[in-house]
Amino acid sequence: MSPSPDLATYLDDLRHTVDAALAHALPEGMAPALIIDAMRHGLMSGGKRLRPCLTLMTAEAVAPLAGTTVPRARLLAIPSACAVEMIHSYSLVHDDLPAMDNDILRRGRPTTHVVYGDGVAVLAGDGLLTEAFGLLAASPSPVAPSGAPEAPADRRLRVLSVLAVAAGAIGMVGGQTIDLQAAGRVPSHPAQPLSERELRDMHARKTGALIRASAVAGAMITGVEDSTIAAVDQYANELGLAFQIIDDVLDVEGSDADLGKTAGKDAASGKPSYAALHGIDESRRLAAACVERAKATLHAAGLEGRLTALADWSLTRTR
Amino acid sequence: MSPSPDLATYLDDLRHTVDAALAHALPEGMAPALIIDAMRHGLMSGGKRLRPCLTLMTAEAVAPLAGTTVPRARLLAIPSACAVEMIHSYSLVHDDLPAMDNDILRRGRPTTHVVYGDGVAVLAGDGLLTEAFGLLAASPSPVAPSGAPEAPADRRLRVLSVLAVAAGAIGMVGGQTIDLQAAGRVPSHPAQPLSERELRDMHARKTGALIRASAVAGAMITGVEDSTIAAVDQYANELGLAFQIIDDVLDVEGSDADLGKTAGKDAASGKPSYAALHGIDESRRLAAACVERAKATLHAAGLEGRLTALADWSLTRTR
Repeated sequence: MSPSPDLATYLDDLRHTVDAALAHALPEGMAPALIIDAMRHGLMSGGKRLRPCLTLMTAEAVAPLAGTTVPRARLLAIPSACAVEMIHSYSLVHDDLPAMDNDILRRGRPTTHVVYGDGVAVLAGDGLLTEAFGLLAASPSPVAPSGAPEAPADRRLRVLSVLAVAAGAIGMVGGQTIDLQAAGRVPSHPAQPLSERELRDMHARKTGALIRASAVAGAMITGVEDSTIAAVDQYANELGLAFQIIDDVLDVEGSDADLGKTAGKDAASGKPSYAALHGIDESRRLAAACVERAKATLHAAGLEGRLTALADWSLTRTR
Repeated sequence: MSPSPDLATYLDDLRHTVDAALAHALPEGMAPALIIDAMRHGLMSGGKRLRPCLTLMTAEAVAPLAGTTVPRARLLAIPSACAVEMIHSYSLVHDDLPAMDNDILRRGRPTTHVVYGDGVAVLAGDGLLTEAFGLLAASPSPVAPSGAPEAPADRRLRVLSVLAVAAGAIGMVGGQTIDLQAAGRVPSHPAQPLSERELRDMHARKTGALIRASAVAGAMITGVEDSTIAAVDQYANELGLAFQIIDDVLDVEGSDADLGKTAGKDAASGKPSYAALHGIDESRRLAAACVERAKATLHAAGLEGRLTALADWSLTRTR
């Protein structure tokens, strides 16, 4: 199911803002054209932009509590939103490599290494990761609309630190390591199926950490107080888990055209998944329980609204 | 030739400071042991630590001009020095991959992908790059000695930005892309020998940019004025070029044992080099001219001392 008309319009608007900002994220003209092309291939591939939209959404949702306006909160959050999407894109480019998950198709298009070769794909990912931190540190940020307000330096450093922890060895890099190891892709480490606890830990690192950091970054950059940031973090933790579980369900149920990737690939490769562990119906129940907890957190923090609608939509989406 | 006794003692002291700080750089205990092991393999491989030593040296050299003490300047610069070395290490781990330069030996030890497999090696590099930015943004930084002073947030952001530009598509990532392309490792881009101008551009990005940023970071973190930072940048530009030229010469002249890598490999692989373009004698003359310009810059900026000695040593070193 598509999001409700109101949420859909809002998400389209956010996505447009993100895409317009990302168009300025790469150091075109000053870098070799080939690497910019490869980076853009990874970055501009028509994804849902869930993470950066979440960053803008949380910034706008907490704006009244932070004593600022909704438009100003969005402007403050644009560099963080772009950094989040670039980190996400880098991770997809590297995860798709033959040395990792060996995917040749992503969102219906050939993956970066298929087009540019493995070496340039490694570099394109490296470049996206580096420029993500670079555009947060630059003053003014290349992605900020001209004349946009800039968050204070200490707040920007704090956001940068949150994103680095989520992306690094504790988070995404650690999660992908566990995944590779479980799949038997590490020499002298035999493949070993993950227990449910280990599966949760792997997902929490590999995808949950950045989703949480995306939401936290948006709230944090407005200067809202820590208790609200903590509520946003808790909300995103449940939302991320719901998204992950439904992803697993859609991988079993969906068609290639809906998903823009090879349906059933995860199941066929013996990758651990919620759907495989619990079956479709129980998985959907688990996701619904996450969404209930997410909504209760919003309610307690006085943040109900579009974040609530997003949580509901996470259950009914078909791609 | 070894550095003079005075410079050698000083460099040993700096290296000891860097290694002690780097021991705290990885999020041990909170990340999967496998990825920490692989990151440490890349980071703790007994290199010269030229770049982080340069960061500490420039911080100490400009301390009087910045109105601070030498010990305080060193403490301020330790996170930047560690970040620089982690960025350097990440780039070596990725450059050694089969998809890139395909090196199995580095500083006399098997490279990261040989020990941990290609997938984990990609992730180890990703992790080192991410944690480099993370430790600059964290407050307190995990690598800072307890109770060490912390530079103001705006200055730390500025350093972070300088390092990101040097590491990103304009700098190291761009330089390695040019190198891969020249070597014919990019599908649908035939190998094409580089002109001397293109060779200089490739080196300036691939190795020069981080050497300059290493020196600039040390000066910048002390809060010294921009004209002094510019002089340090110019010095490091000449120093980096001298190092590169002498590296090329040593690759032709040196033995495996001296270099800790396969001597003559660059020449054998038809990689462009100063030695190949100009011959040994003319290359040494070019390097000497760089060192003269580097020393003149120091003289004009009132920065003579150990930085001068380092420049002289760059010509006489044998490894």
